[in-house]
Amino acid sequence: MKEIIKERAAQIDKALNEYLPSRDNPQSVIYDAMRYSLFAGGKRLRPLLMLETAKMCGGDENEIIPFACSMEMIHTYSLIHDDLPAMDNDDLRRGKPTSHIKFGEAIAILAGDALLNKAFEIVSEYNGANPQRTIKAISVLANSSGTEGMIGGQIVDIESEGHTISSDKLEYLHSLKTGAIIRSSCVIGALLSDATDEKINAVDEFAKNLGIAFQIQDDILDVTGTEDELGKPIGSDAEENKNTYVSLFGLEKSKELSALYSGKAKDALSVFGDKAEFLSQLTDYLINRKK
Amino acid sequence: MKEIIKERAAQIDKALNEYLPSRDNPQSVIYDAMRYSLFAGGKRLRPLLMLETAKMCGGDENEIIPFACSMEMIHTYSLIHDDLPAMDNDDLRRGKPTSHIKFGEAIAILAGDALLNKAFEIVSEYNGANPQRTIKAISVLANSSGTEGMIGGQIVDIESEGHTISSDKLEYLHSLKTGAIIRSSCVIGALLSDATDEKINAVDEFAKNLGIAFQIQDDILDVTGTEDELGKPIGSDAEENKNTYVSLFGLEKSKELSALYSGKAKDALSVFGDKAEFLSQLTDYLINRKK
Repeated sequence: MKEIIKERAAQIDKALNEYLPSRDNPQSVIYDAMRYSLFAGGKRLRPLLMLETAKMCGGDENEIIPFACSMEMIHTYSLIHDDLPAMDNDDLRRGKPTSHIKFGEAIAILAGDALLNKAFEIVSEYNGANPQRTIKAISVLANSSGTEGMIGGQIVDIESEGHTISSDKLEYLHSLKTGAIIRSSCVIGALLSDATDEKINAVDEFAKNLGIAFQIQDDILDVTGTEDELGKPIGSDAEENKNTYVSLFGLEKSKELSALYSGKAKDALSVFGDKAEFLSQLTDYLINRKK
Repeated sequence: MKEIIKERAAQIDKALNEYLPSRDNPQSVIYDAMRYSLFAGGKRLRPLLMLETAKMCGGDENEIIPFACSMEMIHTYSLIHDDLPAMDNDDLRRGKPTSHIKFGEAIAILAGDALLNKAFEIVSEYNGANPQRTIKAISVLANSSGTEGMIGGQIVDIESEGHTISSDKLEYLHSLKTGAIIRSSCVIGALLSDATDEKINAVDEFAKNLGIAFQIQDDILDVTGTEDELGKPIGSDAEENKNTYVSLFGLEKSKELSALYSGKAKDALSVFGDKAEFLSQLTDYLINRKK
């Protein structure tokens, strides 16, 4: 498992490096800043999910690397902007200074903008066999990162800070903020592998539940992890008066919920039979992770 | 001329309103913030150029409204982020409080992100007759707003503040910061009208020169305009130690240069004969504008 994750990450890193090389021009600092955050040690989880979903659906996962890279760029841009002083005001991310600490706020804002923009540069140059599906995949990508997806979730998160919200609202928040692009990563992998609607729906159901389980585990780790493991201060959610699964349900109940949703995720994969083995194991691995 | 500009702006406003209605959901504030800046009285110059270029090339300009709206969203997002405290720190834009003054910095950053993202949501749902050209147009759009386009120009602008730059560097800066999306607006209008390569190149040459003339006029107005006309304080460029055509060449020489480049722009349109009349007149109108 760990070996495959590592290999996939190396494959993505190589492709990201090709799509976003350093440049020697008057605006070179923007490339430096984009690369700084892009190569800050991310797990490449979303690309991994996209590629493995494609493989499970019988597609050639190497064909869709451009979409996998775009997804990672969108994820990275969201982290840069989330860390800004006006947002979460975080100085550390994965044990390294955040973008605005390293490059200043102006460059950090623009590096985020540029990564979002670059994602669409890359996919609009994608030369897939099925142009209809390509455009559909771009649309799924764009919608999942927008106001009814990731950005919408970020807004609800900001608006909820400092007062307790209902469990429905918390699920809504996370289904958008972290869930939407986890779902679209998997759905795009299926779409670009010419999967049937039935299989695309099964993939979507898997990803929806995995996203929730993943977020619960994230909230748990913010309480039970160590600073060394996480690369950021422990308890920062509580300190920022964030609503989390742990703050709402307590630690024990959160662990139960995480197991419940990861079970649902794995159940959704039954239509794929043996081919679902890797994603099923990955689900267990992710909700038992320590960082 | 003024009548046509007004009619086009009304057409774009109507379409923008349909693409971005208010929403009654937990993240409704993001829609409010996006709409606040989008409907703050912009001239809709880039959509106008796109639609009129399409018409000149024999296309149906009403077909490409989605691309025109996307372009205006990208222009608007760039203004919101430019105005942020970490960037130009402007409190007023077109006579109204800027986004971060009105909504706070976090929402302003996200409103910019969301408008950029929305632009790609819209074009990925565009149903044109020629999918090949549609994808090409998305690529032109994305590249013109990225690190080798608008964002690149913004970086060079930031890096140049406080020290004098060469005229070559100033032209490079503006060819990216304001020029790139003026060019792509026109090129997309031609592309989506199935124009020949020769005509696309002529349109590009027109737009390149128009963009420079337009920027020079912008710099001139920052010195000669009134706060009432511009909706922002006069002399703000000088106050921020910005490099402008006026600071580099003086007022008289800048006026000459503006006339020179607008002449070049009009010359480039000769291949279109009578059909170029509107864009030719628009060029004169733009470099004689007072705001």
